[in-house]
Amino acid sequence: MSDSQFHQKILWINPVATDIFDKPMLEMFQDVKAPFTRVDVVSFPPIGPKHLEYSCYEMMIMPELMKTVRRAEEQGYDAAVIGCFYDPALRAAREVANKMVVTAPAESCLRLAATLGDTVSIIVGRRKWVPEMRENVHKYGYKDKLASFKVLGMGVHDFQKDHEETKRQILQAAQEAVEKDGAEVVVLGCTIEFGFYQEVQRRVGVPVLDATIAPLKYAEYLIGLRNQFGWGHSKIAGFEAPPEQEISEWSLFE
Amino acid sequence: MSDSQFHQKILWINPVATDIFDKPMLEMFQDVKAPFTRVDVVSFPPIGPKHLEYSCYEMMIMPELMKTVRRAEEQGYDAAVIGCFYDPALRAAREVANKMVVTAPAESCLRLAATLGDTVSIIVGRRKWVPEMRENVHKYGYKDKLASFKVLGMGVHDFQKDHEETKRQILQAAQEAVEKDGAEVVVLGCTIEFGFYQEVQRRVGVPVLDATIAPLKYAEYLIGLRNQFGWGHSKIAGFEAPPEQEISEWSLFE
Amino acid sequence: MSDSQFHQKILWINPVATDIFDKPMLEMFQDVKAPFTRVDVVSFPPIGPKHLEYSCYEMMIMPELMKTVRRAEEQGYDAAVIGCFYDPALRAAREVANKMVVTAPAESCLRLAATLGDTVSIIVGRRKWVPEMRENVHKYGYKDKLASFKVLGMGVHDFQKDHEETKRQILQAAQEAVEKDGAEVVVLGCTIEFGFYQEVQRRVGVPVLDATIAPLKYAEYLIGLRNQFGWGHSKIAGFEAPPEQEISEWSLFE
Amino acid sequence: MSDSQFHQKILWINPVATDIFDKPMLEMFQDVKAPFTRVDVVSFPPIGPKHLEYSCYEMMIMPELMKTVRRAEEQGYDAAVIGCFYDPALRAAREVANKMVVTAPAESCLRLAATLGDTVSIIVGRRKWVPEMRENVHKYGYKDKLASFKVLGMGVHDFQKDHEETKRQILQAAQEAVEKDGAEVVVLGCTIEFGFYQEVQRRVGVPVLDATIAPLKYAEYLIGLRNQFGWGHSKIAGFEAPPEQEISEWSLFE
Amino acid sequence: MSDSQFHQKILWINPVATDIFDKPMLEMFQDVKAPFTRVDVVSFPPIGPKHLEYSCYEMMIMPELMKTVRRAEEQGYDAAVIGCFYDPALRAAREVANKMVVTAPAESCLRLAATLGDTVSIIVGRRKWVPEMRENVHKYGYKDKLASFKVLGMGVHDFQKDHEETKRQILQAAQEAVEKDGAEVVVLGCTIEFGFYQEVQRRVGVPVLDATIAPLKYAEYLIGLRNQFGWGHSKIAGFEAPPEQEISEWSLFE
Amino acid sequence: MSDSQFHQKILWINPVATDIFDKPMLEMFQDVKAPFTRVDVVSFPPIGPKHLEYSCYEMMIMPELMKTVRRAEEQGYDAAVIGCFYDPALRAAREVANKMVVTAPAESCLRLAATLGDTVSIIVGRRKWVPEMRENVHKYGYKDKLASFKVLGMGVHDFQKDHEETKRQILQAAQEAVEKDGAEVVVLGCTIEFGFYQEVQRRVGVPVLDATIAPLKYAEYLIGLRNQFGWGHSKIAGFEAPPEQEISEWSLFE
Repeated sequence: MSDSQFHQKILWINPVATDIFDKPMLEMFQDVKAPFTRVDVVSFPPIGPKHLEYSCYEMMIMPELMKTVRRAEEQGYDAAVIGCFYDPALRAAREVANKMVVTAPAESCLRLAATLGDTVSIIVGRRKWVPEMRENVHKYGYKDKLASFKVLGMGVHDFQKDHEETKRQILQAAQEAVEKDGAEVVVLGCTIEFGFYQEVQRRVGVPVLDATIAPLKYAEYLIGLRNQFGWGHSKIAGFEAPPEQEISEWSLFE
Repeated sequence: MSDSQFHQKILWINPVATDIFDKPMLEMFQDVKAPFTRVDVVSFPPIGPKHLEYSCYEMMIMPELMKTVRRAEEQGYDAAVIGCFYDPALRAAREVANKMVVTAPAESCLRLAATLGDTVSIIVGRRKWVPEMRENVHKYGYKDKLASFKVLGMGVHDFQKDHEETKRQILQAAQEAVEKDGAEVVVLGCTIEFGFYQEVQRRVGVPVLDATIAPLKYAEYLIGLRNQFGWGHSKIAGFEAPPEQEISEWSLFE
Repeated sequence: MSDSQFHQKILWINPVATDIFDKPMLEMFQDVKAPFTRVDVVSFPPIGPKHLEYSCYEMMIMPELMKTVRRAEEQGYDAAVIGCFYDPALRAAREVANKMVVTAPAESCLRLAATLGDTVSIIVGRRKWVPEMRENVHKYGYKDKLASFKVLGMGVHDFQKDHEETKRQILQAAQEAVEKDGAEVVVLGCTIEFGFYQEVQRRVGVPVLDATIAPLKYAEYLIGLRNQFGWGHSKIAGFEAPPEQEISEWSLFE
Repeated sequence: MSDSQFHQKILWINPVATDIFDKPMLEMFQDVKAPFTRVDVVSFPPIGPKHLEYSCYEMMIMPELMKTVRRAEEQGYDAAVIGCFYDPALRAAREVANKMVVTAPAESCLRLAATLGDTVSIIVGRRKWVPEMRENVHKYGYKDKLASFKVLGMGVHDFQKDHEETKRQILQAAQEAVEKDGAEVVVLGCTIEFGFYQEVQRRVGVPVLDATIAPLKYAEYLIGLRNQFGWGHSKIAGFEAPPEQEISEWSLFE
Repeated sequence: MSDSQFHQKILWINPVATDIFDKPMLEMFQDVKAPFTRVDVVSFPPIGPKHLEYSCYEMMIMPELMKTVRRAEEQGYDAAVIGCFYDPALRAAREVANKMVVTAPAESCLRLAATLGDTVSIIVGRRKWVPEMRENVHKYGYKDKLASFKVLGMGVHDFQKDHEETKRQILQAAQEAVEKDGAEVVVLGCTIEFGFYQEVQRRVGVPVLDATIAPLKYAEYLIGLRNQFGWGHSKIAGFEAPPEQEISEWSLFE
Repeated sequence: MSDSQFHQKILWINPVATDIFDKPMLEMFQDVKAPFTRVDVVSFPPIGPKHLEYSCYEMMIMPELMKTVRRAEEQGYDAAVIGCFYDPALRAAREVANKMVVTAPAESCLRLAATLGDTVSIIVGRRKWVPEMRENVHKYGYKDKLASFKVLGMGVHDFQKDHEETKRQILQAAQEAVEKDGAEVVVLGCTIEFGFYQEVQRRVGVPVLDATIAPLKYAEYLIGLRNQFGWGHSKIAGFEAPPEQEISEWSLFE
């Protein structure tokens, strides 16, 4: 398929030092993207953290993330998605992206969840993740909509090991969320929980949002708005771009 | 153009007893909709309120609104947009719409605004509108993002009378919002403020969201998610559908 | 008893298309009203919803409700009470009521509960009711005082079927609210839960507020304040009255 | 007038070491109370603070206040009102009052204001008062309804010195509150601002709540509810009464 | 040890009419204070409440507390600590203390807890205490960090009766807080729960804050800041000092 | 002076690629630290951003920051202070620091400010900084205490250029904050605003907190608590340390 068929290009960034998720995600994105969207998936050089469960791991990949976002803009991407449910460096990426739009899983899932229902539960791997994610829930404005966090007791690299077992556990947590905690919508709170939403959704009977698909589609939506109406990130305060002179003087993103 | 060209149909509902806005809106929607979307615009029979500035006017059109939503679903619409910035009866419409998605201006503008900037000001016609709209801002979770309401001192039917004067006033309010109140995004808080966002946006240099375009595009986005991933409104609690037996027994939506 | 004995008249509105609750409520009100108060109870013509568990049912009765409120003011009522715990159209009714005061169950119960204790639980029929009621709790300012909603699994028309069974269930929910959820006050979150508060209160030992009596007495209180001190609803913004010219031009409330 | 004409007795407590406000207040209360209510006004022995502008002054009168509340209950009062807009020791007084209801100006004014309008401004004497009063506004749940505090630059004992001047100042502050700060209701935030509400209200056209009348009438309302329905302060947690044994053993309230 | 060895003096106030806790506390403070700090412990004359579980007991000791704070300042103390987890009269004491700093257990424990973890549980004696303490948690800004209150079912004078039993109960509550309620930090919500934090902390593996040590050390910290940098309580509004003329005219703190 | 004189060592980290502030800060710290504290000041290699006004600049220094924190712990520092008012990577640094305590300017200034007064204004250089700082204010729990941000229109590197001019501007902003915005405490919202607090404080008469001194002294306070009582950061959830095995396997902090 030639490049000219695509009106828009999205870069999905797996901000980890492993490419093992790139291919399955790319395959999945082929099924879910709009026909005129091209999606590329990148991850980082193999020296560094292979997951971001710890905030200090997040911090170690930040320069690579910034450079990747900057390069994406130079390469004409219309959007970048930061593929981690902590939404790492979302503000910083939006500063860097003058034309591109940038989004991330938690933001896109939560805004959507708030339209689909009154309350939401987020299914996460470990208790460790909860405080940072809860901060984001509050920051985005959804404190009053949070029914619960459900902790599976699994690490990022456990989710795709034994599909049946992971599905069983997610399903049980989702059912508890809906029946005991009052959730009307369930969010899978890790991008590596991909591949499970459909069956869980079918079984629990409420929307179950996948943390890879939701931001990808939100990116497509935001691209359209920016292209047609000029509704991109406001650049006068919180997402103001740094001066090019400083960037070049300090060789910042090279 | 034949019907078969469209994958999806959206019904824009002007919930007022006048059709004077239908044609200009429809024309505008032709320019902004996706190619595969068909948009229809309806308004209500000419007996009733011609604007909804008062909550009691809103209440008078509720049954017609409910019937219109119900009929839309029966006619195979994929989405309905309730065209008033009070987002009237959004919960009720979502109950009625079993398959359709339903959205409205304030919700769609605010969720988008929160992605585009840290703070938002809403430009409204009269002080009367503020309390009900502020309740919605709080309800949707954006209390901490609200920079200000700016009151123009104009009624709904004034906006389209003298375009230059309206534009001048909106522009002045938007500039105040950005410079004094700290807004990073401006929302035009009435669907009849259509036709102004572009020039105001160009002049103030921040995103200025139009309350007709934003919900239309949000509807397209939501349709896509529902069709592809089954992510429609959760029907187990807040948007639970009423039993068909009662509806028919009580001849409710006829 | 002649009309001249009464200083003030309250209209209790059962906003449903059935009069089966009118008589028992009226009888109860005779026992609880002030001597100088006359209470009338009305319900709506038998075509329409017989309960308002769904927001879309609420919407269908709105015009009748508006007309009833408007007529009540014309007939010299001092107050109207909208007899449903969703407090439907409270803002709209206050716009319409230029002289009358208007109140409703949730508002009156919650304001009172907040004076009687630090925390409150609300006993409702079905999970469906919770999101809309929770929105009201937050809107009225009592988010931090909400201990829990207790769901009985009963519909509006179940409450008066088997008094012993309903009482048993309310009692159990109230005890759980007090012992497990930390409630200091219990509110019966449906007007049709009338007739139970006394015994439940006696058994659980905390105030149990009845959603018919509380708003009736609040209405009496508000009437007194308006008559003596001119403290009625502020009419300059959120409750501003619509212009009579539009009302008559559009034949709005006829 | 004989005692037997009164069904209910309210004790208004001016918690200051001066009786200069007792007589004018009592006279005013004669005009506003219900016919069957007897109101008594007490103040404290002339050794102590003559106003409570400082929290440390409040603290100095606490035992006298507690004893007065306790004695009031023993003497068969139905309600006590703590006559200071800081609502001093409201929780403590409710513990002591096993049968009586107890209220205070800020609570009663704010609950009422929230029913009469969407936003409220409070007119106070000095900036010093604001932090403690704002804490109460938040505590009672009305943070989102607070339009502003307006500071007159007057002490408690200034209000009644030059009526015309005080009225002029309150009026100006009230007009600013309504026109600039968006207030729909005005509260006079000191009991000694009595005597002004009527003319200010007439001039600004929104409800102006008097901090002596509002709590008195709220007390009457609460008495009625307690007498008829047993809805007094919940005694199982926050307002639990101290054990009589300790009180007597420690000679606490003698 | 001579007085000249100490740079700073702290007065710990046990605001109760018993000195039984003074000596053990003083001994404990000798172990934990800075070398250059002198700590004195006072309690009140034996006529009055021997604990402050009830707000009305608190109120009875207020004048003694105010006088003690005032005297402490006159005697050159650098700080006063009000030794009760309700933080009684903290604002009032700060008005009185022109040079001294004043703190109290809840404030000091909560500020510290918020630095040590994301969520906190408070272990209290009786349910009665919770509402007043929860108000303080909210007032200080830590509402979103509160995991739970754990109620032991013990009174103030029970804690030191049977050390093993108390420790067992606190330990169990702390473990529940950490494992079920998601607490990352535990606060012992009564000064008389002293002597237990170490072992509980060792066993549960999270910080367990002692309500006597935390405020003492916070006082030392505040003294240092005031002495070196002039960072004492702001005296222009909420903590403004009362005029000396009134104090002397009214013989207030004698 | 020999190393053995110091009980505790604090590392102040200027997380920028310039050492021009290191020496003046170190000199200042010599004057303010405790006698037994040793303070070292480090900054980063000269390749990188020379200020952190932009979030994307922050992100570029994150690995260096993490490594510096990690190294500090290995070198036996008792505390690290991250010297930027955005409090960059505070959570991440606390994960990495198993024994050390870590703090930062905004956290330490705000907790202190909340003890010193009821409301606080923060004086910042540019509007750009406000959104990220406001997020921190909310996250730390001080939303209700925020009087205003005052924007000087200066960049980080402007503050120390013309002392008189900077002082004049800070003074003017501080006076406005106190007189118009109602602030009782002023915080200088950038570490490079050092050297001004004293004179501004003297002139405006309220505490003016310096963003370098406040965190240094907070660090000393926290070290003491950790050493004496074991009250360090809770490591069971939000600040859980990453597994050493991953760190070494991925050569993370080398």
